[in-house]
Amino acid sequence: KLFIDTGKDEVFSLIQTLNIQVTLTPVLPTRALRSDLTTFMNEWRPMFSRFHVIIVKDPDLKEELKIPEGFNLDVYGKPDIDQVAGSSTSILFSGYSCRYFGYLVSRKKYIISVDDDCLPARDPKGFLVDAVAQHISNLTSPATPFFFNTLYDPYAEGADFVRGYPFSLRGGVKCALSCGLWLNLADHDAPTQALKARQRNSRYVDAVMTVPARSLIPISGINIAFEREAVGPALVPALKLAGEGKCRWETMEDIWSGLCVKIVCDHLGLGVKTGLPYIWRTDRGDPIASLKKEWEGVKLMEEVIPFFQSVRLPREATTVEECIIEVANAVKERLGSMDPVFARAAKAMLDWVELWQSVGSSS
Amino acid sequence: KLFIDTGKDEVFSLIQTLNIQVTLTPVLPTRALRSDLTTFMNEWRPMFSRFHVIIVKDPDLKEELKIPEGFNLDVYGKPDIDQVAGSSTSILFSGYSCRYFGYLVSRKKYIISVDDDCLPARDPKGFLVDAVAQHISNLTSPATPFFFNTLYDPYAEGADFVRGYPFSLRGGVKCALSCGLWLNLADHDAPTQALKARQRNSRYVDAVMTVPARSLIPISGINIAFEREAVGPALVPALKLAGEGKCRWETMEDIWSGLCVKIVCDHLGLGVKTGLPYIWRTDRGDPIASLKKEWEGVKLMEEVIPFFQSVRLPREATTVEECIIEVANAVKERLGSMDPVFARAAKAMLDWVELWQSVGSSS
Repeated sequence: KLFIDTGKDEVFSLIQTLNIQVTLTPVLPTRALRSDLTTFMNEWRPMFSRFHVIIVKDPDLKEELKIPEGFNLDVYGKPDIDQVAGSSTSILFSGYSCRYFGYLVSRKKYIISVDDDCLPARDPKGFLVDAVAQHISNLTSPATPFFFNTLYDPYAEGADFVRGYPFSLRGGVKCALSCGLWLNLADHDAPTQALKARQRNSRYVDAVMTVPARSLIPISGINIAFEREAVGPALVPALKLAGEGKCRWETMEDIWSGLCVKIVCDHLGLGVKTGLPYIWRTDRGDPIASLKKEWEGVKLMEEVIPFFQSVRLPREATTVEECIIEVANAVKERLGSMDPVFARAAKAMLDWVELWQSVGSSS
Repeated sequence: KLFIDTGKDEVFSLIQTLNIQVTLTPVLPTRALRSDLTTFMNEWRPMFSRFHVIIVKDPDLKEELKIPEGFNLDVYGKPDIDQVAGSSTSILFSGYSCRYFGYLVSRKKYIISVDDDCLPARDPKGFLVDAVAQHISNLTSPATPFFFNTLYDPYAEGADFVRGYPFSLRGGVKCALSCGLWLNLADHDAPTQALKARQRNSRYVDAVMTVPARSLIPISGINIAFEREAVGPALVPALKLAGEGKCRWETMEDIWSGLCVKIVCDHLGLGVKTGLPYIWRTDRGDPIASLKKEWEGVKLMEEVIPFFQSVRLPREATTVEECIIEVANAVKERLGSMDPVFARAAKAMLDWVELWQSVGSSS
């Protein structure tokens, strides 16, 4: 009985007993900042074609999207966004934030989100990485946030818990969010990218690990997966920088929503994993030109982190929506006077919860 | 100025400015449970021969040690232990705990400890891993316990901090302890080893990471390194199981001292890293025969972990010695009545601090 969680087969059968929805039905809301998605979709075809794909077109993008045939997909653009979320003026689904519209309208159990400047990576042996399969594996095996396992993911093939790991914690908790990584171009900020313009990430770290409870992590939206019902409302399009641009390093929306989701997971006893799968991220943008914009975000982080490190959610907040409302109120109260960007973020979070409850939560 | 910590060269020069002792002088206290160390020492010769080696002979081992020529080494045995620590009846330097005698009598800045059933590992490209160099690299570059970096060790060659990582935390803190890992035979407990008798660890995870603050980790003593003055007294030979044997999985002394050292590091703002270097760990022992003994330790962990998760050190405790005295008193108070093993551990911790102050702290 003690060992029900150490063998991978047993783990899966246990999960299947607990889950009502046994079938895995991931959605892949990619977001379209560029109009020609031919290469992107064709490269991802082996992984994406079995699943439902949502493409959300940046409302600022004027050109028609070019999408190859052969996918089960829905495309959403400005008219859809206006129709569904038109009443809100605080939530802006432009730029990178258009992805959140896909999270809202999807009805699938698991969502995988990949940016359109990413292609499938290859592992050190040259095999194509199936990012979808790895994300699903991360989400369907337990997370272990309450004690550190030096042997990385204890549920991985050939791995286990290290000596001294308490047996009472080996069952783990539900993994709600899986954060993948990036080969070639890592997700640096503009100053780092400008300073190390030629640096490329070639280190393939063959590991998945649970981010420990009460440890904050700068979650990137480039390559993530999550269980929609478990944490969907916590992925909030809320922090919009005044000088936000169309390059990844000019945005902070995913860092903010990542901090939200992590403290909510810690509060609700859910897990967050990071590591595999890698995607191959291609170059674009001019970091030097972005530098000036980026400083705004870099400076904001110095206020944001102490806030998230110290915010405590009340015991009464037992749903993701309630947690986000609590965080939004605390943001308004403690950060609101520092910078208008925070008051706007708090408003957007409250509106997002409302929108999710009216649009997102219907199955 | 903001970037003084992002380039590896600058990091080193910064450390060198701060450190009074610039030269790295590791000691390698291996411990001898088997008498013939010929193969062990010859395999490790490329890494060990430049440094001072301490071999501590298990006082229970009767045979003479066989050690090849060509090393700068000191061997300590029962007479030395009796002479130096003879007054204490609570600290027992037998079995795996003989290693702590080496920590006590060494006068070097960095200590690396490797068990005698370990040989140098090879990386996936077939190159011999220099565990000494990797441990020293881990200890001489900062640790980042206050925020999680998804790109693993930001100070590693070709790595950096991820977008969103607060700049104010990029300087990091001193790394006091480096925990290496194991290829071939991982450090499992007896039940796991018995259940998965044929499982071997072949996954070489090319990463070093800081264990986040307030996250506990089951530190293994098989392959570790530490800065002696920073945390030496926190590595305590204290928890001796009633049925402790001569197989790794029959002991918990390192798990206990690891929990002590981690909460002390968290309190004093020091870092603990885990990951590279790997060593190659060879087979021995009969896990089935050990199973009965192990359950004692496994059951104790269920009491031990909540204790260490909740113990808070007072602000006034500003040295490692003061911290350990505080932990010892809390152990006596909160765990002492549960099992005599805890009262003995508390006593051993207090005696160890005293011994360290009289013997260990003289340079």
